[in-house]
Amino acid sequence: MFDYKLLAALAAVVEQAGFERAAQVLGLSQSAVSQRIKLLEARVGQPVLMRVSPPVATAVGQRLLNHVQQVRLLERDLQAQVPSLDEGGAPERLRIALNADSLATWWASAVGDFCAEQRLLLEHLVEDQDVGLKRMRAGEVAACLCASERPLAGARAELLGAMRYRALASPDFIRRHFAEGVSAPALARAPAIVFGPDDQLQHRYLAALGQEGGFCHHLCPSSEGFVRLAEAGFGWGLMPELQVQAELGRGSLVELLPQRPVDVPLYWHHWRNGGALLEQLTRHLHRQADKWLVPVVGV
Amino acid sequence: MFDYKLLAALAAVVEQAGFERAAQVLGLSQSAVSQRIKLLEARVGQPVLMRVSPPVATAVGQRLLNHVQQVRLLERDLQAQVPSLDEGGAPERLRIALNADSLATWWASAVGDFCAEQRLLLEHLVEDQDVGLKRMRAGEVAACLCASERPLAGARAELLGAMRYRALASPDFIRRHFAEGVSAPALARAPAIVFGPDDQLQHRYLAALGQEGGFCHHLCPSSEGFVRLAEAGFGWGLMPELQVQAELGRGSLVELLPQRPVDVPLYWHHWRNGGALLEQLTRHLHRQADKWLVPVVGV
Repeated sequence: MFDYKLLAALAAVVEQAGFERAAQVLGLSQSAVSQRIKLLEARVGQPVLMRVSPPVATAVGQRLLNHVQQVRLLERDLQAQVPSLDEGGAPERLRIALNADSLATWWASAVGDFCAEQRLLLEHLVEDQDVGLKRMRAGEVAACLCASERPLAGARAELLGAMRYRALASPDFIRRHFAEGVSAPALARAPAIVFGPDDQLQHRYLAALGQEGGFCHHLCPSSEGFVRLAEAGFGWGLMPELQVQAELGRGSLVELLPQRPVDVPLYWHHWRNGGALLEQLTRHLHRQADKWLVPVVGV
Repeated sequence: MFDYKLLAALAAVVEQAGFERAAQVLGLSQSAVSQRIKLLEARVGQPVLMRVSPPVATAVGQRLLNHVQQVRLLERDLQAQVPSLDEGGAPERLRIALNADSLATWWASAVGDFCAEQRLLLEHLVEDQDVGLKRMRAGEVAACLCASERPLAGARAELLGAMRYRALASPDFIRRHFAEGVSAPALARAPAIVFGPDDQLQHRYLAALGQEGGFCHHLCPSSEGFVRLAEAGFGWGLMPELQVQAELGRGSLVELLPQRPVDVPLYWHHWRNGGALLEQLTRHLHRQADKWLVPVVGV
């Protein structure tokens, strides 16, 4: 068997984003954590961590973390069957990467009851799809909810449905920028709001209207902040229908081109051998998701 | 004078979090960007970037970025005075680091008019205080809104007021965990919600009630997700009063121990020589902030 004390040290340094916090969590001195990482590297025969801030796992380190994540899920199953194995420590948290808009809208309602019944603690990592899947491949998360349909090796990717987005702006913004009506060229000239460098929704929306190329935009990596900026007249942008019911109701946000929603599919990525809990959560999500998500056309 | 083509390449690689995207933004090939960074390193006589993913500026690289950020702000002033200097490119965005809860609540309302009048585009970076100030020191942002009162060398830190937080949970959660009433020990046993490893609000709240030590908690690095989790009965947590008016109104969240708010002061950090625009934004914020923030007692 591997020496899991060493692997747990590696996992703690990466999860806690540093040696100091890893030491606190493990109840060890920082030099003891360092020592364990060095010992692990001596056994593996190569570095497992790049010593940058925060520390990053090397390729081989990632394979080790991936293994740790899966062993933890299996341990949880075993503990459910053999409760005396429970060491009384803090309960393990299931780490899940998901897109910011799901976390800001339907996710909590969909899994709240499940977590309360199972006494399950969650750690959420807000990541766009590429980083979320990279973290899953690196063994840092047990599952990932994102728009990419391609499963990782050893994992499943299941379609849950789609989030519907609408292009919205404040009435004041519309008066200022679309006095002649909302046309595609006028839209391309008005400032937009974009979540981050990976957010292509606004680009795709303009492209579908025949407007290719760059456009000026604010950047706001916060779902709630995005809606607040739109309401305050910073720019136009695509927002999840689920998130803006109140704003649409009171008229502080207005749809720019009605009947042009954008549907973004959401896939649930999870390890095939992720243990019973992850399987149950997956089944639960399938039962719940269509309360909030729309069906994907053509699937 | 420095060779600003080289410095702009460094800034683009760090701001765009990679060589590929930096090349797109600069309209260069990736190898041309690489070449510029190497040339810069040859001139400086040491590495300016650590080649990890995403690339990280070295200490000397950070000093260069800091300089670039300040030069950009000064250029903007000059352009306002000499409009013919405007090269017609995409307008420069002002990069600002701020705490997630401000962005989710009052920030947009406070600065929306200012940005529309000045035709100013913003790039928001959501960071807790230590990382936000680190980014400011690294020259990656022009200003930082956070709870730390200590100014960086060359910068000012001005108190704007405090955000008021209240400890809340769903009625269902309260029935499940506090059948005997909300006592400090019962609170320490019930699952909490914590924003991230740096969020000590819940810890401090329990400590003030005489409950030291660890407690089980979910982790949720999203302001809106935090409120959604609390509403769905995941746990209790401290939420900005500004953000939960609707939830308190309809009773989906209830205060645990009334009359025990926690006030978190907010300081606006900005460079002393940050140019006229940053000065104006600072004055605007001072005029606006007390519409949303509460006065800090004892100041």
